Amino acid sequence: MAYDSNNIFAKILRGEAPCIKVYEDGDTLAFMDLMPQADGHVLIVPKEPAETLLELSEEGAMAAIRTTRRIAIAVKKALGVEGLHVAQLNGAAAGQTVPHIHFHVIPHATGTVLRMHAAQRAAEDDLKAMAERIKACLAQA
Amino acid sequence: MAYDSNNIFAKILRGEAPCIKVYEDGDTLAFMDLMPQADGHVLIVPKEPAETLLELSEEGAMAAIRTTRRIAIAVKKALGVEGLHVAQLNGAAAGQTVPHIHFHVIPHATGTVLRMHAAQRAAEDDLKAMAERIKACLAQA
Repeated sequence: MAYDSNNIFAKILRGEAPCIKVYEDGDTLAFMDLMPQADGHVLIVPKEPAETLLELSEEGAMAAIRTTRRIAIAVKKALGVEGLHVAQLNGAAAGQTVPHIHFHVIPHATGTVLRMHAAQRAAEDDLKAMAERIKACLAQA
Repeated sequence: MAYDSNNIFAKILRGEAPCIKVYEDGDTLAFMDLMPQADGHVLIVPKEPAETLLELSEEGAMAAIRTTRRIAIAVKKALGVEGLHVAQLNGAAAGQTVPHIHFHVIPHATGTVLRMHAAQRAAEDDLKAMAERIKACLAQA
């Protein structure tokens, strides 16, 4: 399908919509999921315009996983959580809600159940505080 | 945690246990999940010994996503499925069942529910037939 440049992540990448940023480099942007499935849920977005991993270039995919790995290390350090999901949904059939490729890093503590995807908005102050904790751990890495 | 070189994926990588192979290069091996969450469920395993994405090197992570992307493209072509999950579980708390880093590529047709993770074994002939279909699409790419 043709890439829709009016999706919310495209707007965030162009600076036309806000995000609670955790990390940015030339190829990727990482920010807090506003409807986290668990506390510390971060999204990693390649800057290349592509709807899914299948349309993203090989270079774009490699940049995305490089950032995803760094974020995962920092999230684990920040939260001290035992488990981490890395998830990347391709197509509405698979539950993709924003048509710009993105990776999820979602903490998963033993015995807990993740909240629904894209379901309930978290308090902005809580997300900002969590972003600061993760950024502090990124800076140490 | 220290890497356990007796895990089943380590044995597959050493050729001490069988797998239904889909793809191999110098850095990665891809094979059919024996307990698929949907038909066409493939596992991508970096050859580097590491338990999770957090312990894997940046280079290993980039090689893994390069192969994962190629497999995803081939699986979509082979099955004509609308949706694809890419999932990577870190730690038993997150549902990781084999302590060697791996990526899942799982087809997801509209309106279907994925089967449980690591729950029910599929027929070997069906898995082999599916592997051949995916390999044929990889060869075309």
